[in-house]
Amino acid sequence: MKLVCLDLEGVLVPEIWIAVAERTGIEELKLTTRDISDYSELMNRRLGVLDREGIRLPEIQDVIRSLSPLEGAMEFVNTLRQETQLVILSDTFSQFASPLMEKLAWPTLFCNELIVEENGRISGFQLRQQDGKKKAVAAFHAMGMHVFAAGDSYNDVTMLQEADKGMFFKAPQSIRDEFPALGGAETHPELLEGIRKFIA
Amino acid sequence: MKLVCLDLEGVLVPEIWIAVAERTGIEELKLTTRDISDYSELMNRRLGVLDREGIRLPEIQDVIRSLSPLEGAMEFVNTLRQETQLVILSDTFSQFASPLMEKLAWPTLFCNELIVEENGRISGFQLRQQDGKKKAVAAFHAMGMHVFAAGDSYNDVTMLQEADKGMFFKAPQSIRDEFPALGGAETHPELLEGIRKFIA
Repeated sequence: MKLVCLDLEGVLVPEIWIAVAERTGIEELKLTTRDISDYSELMNRRLGVLDREGIRLPEIQDVIRSLSPLEGAMEFVNTLRQETQLVILSDTFSQFASPLMEKLAWPTLFCNELIVEENGRISGFQLRQQDGKKKAVAAFHAMGMHVFAAGDSYNDVTMLQEADKGMFFKAPQSIRDEFPALGGAETHPELLEGIRKFIA
Repeated sequence: MKLVCLDLEGVLVPEIWIAVAERTGIEELKLTTRDISDYSELMNRRLGVLDREGIRLPEIQDVIRSLSPLEGAMEFVNTLRQETQLVILSDTFSQFASPLMEKLAWPTLFCNELIVEENGRISGFQLRQQDGKKKAVAAFHAMGMHVFAAGDSYNDVTMLQEADKGMFFKAPQSIRDEFPALGGAETHPELLEGIRKFIA
């Protein structure tokens, strides 16, 4: 049986932290794993900034609720789910993703979770596991699934390599050059074409 | 992160082979794993009957398209997907399930696949793996997921036992008596209540 695993941010929806940084005007929230490669270190930095600025979960959720999926993403996901199985693998947090998942008609999402206090302060986070995207694909293999995976950045590379077929989506040319064995798509129709070849 | 794994037939939709038996009037298609415990043997018997009667995939799909999800199942699935993650684990075949998945708004489904000839004759089938429901839950555990599982019959027992919390749904009293450690629900609201306790 075939399964498609997609990264969320940059493939189906905008980068959530970038949007939060832009709406709040806090430049420091624009830091990504390209700036601080350790994800837990980056997250602790971000949570420190939120604390310093007094920003709590409901305010961030308001920003996220105002976001839309990327252009063409809803149509892409709708078509995909009629033709094969989809699980979204993301490093984001369920409390952030939920308003966007609603707009995509609730596809299955495996991600991480925030630890939130009664008053809405985000006190920490729980990663599902280290290198969770790659390990998820490995576990799908253990279920006898044949996996196509797509993502847009460095944190997707091990997932793309673990999959039976991995493909970058709108990835920077520098990353694509570094991993020439992985294919790349620039648009959702192009990605769908790659998926259809895989599931045929 | 929490995940709910549900059996399909008897939990969300009617028993597909029973419906096909009733619509075609072929009593032999009513045989289940209660009559022939080996699933592959049962399936080969069923495919032999279809061949003998000249019934091809499109005719079966017509029957399935006329079926509806069980009463309350659509509402149950819609609510569930807004509160947690769902993967349906079924022994059915993707070619059979598809019209019913559409009616449930395309939840993620891991099942098996039929081998179909150009002319629609079903020549065989491919099981994802032996004891696939239990192994799927084990693989979800390897991804760091906490799993709630529900099903209605013997072929669900190992899945329910492997899950962090397993619950029968409308299972015959004899099965429930045999596995008293597993809880049971008789209605979708009751099952939802059990799931909400688990994800809380």
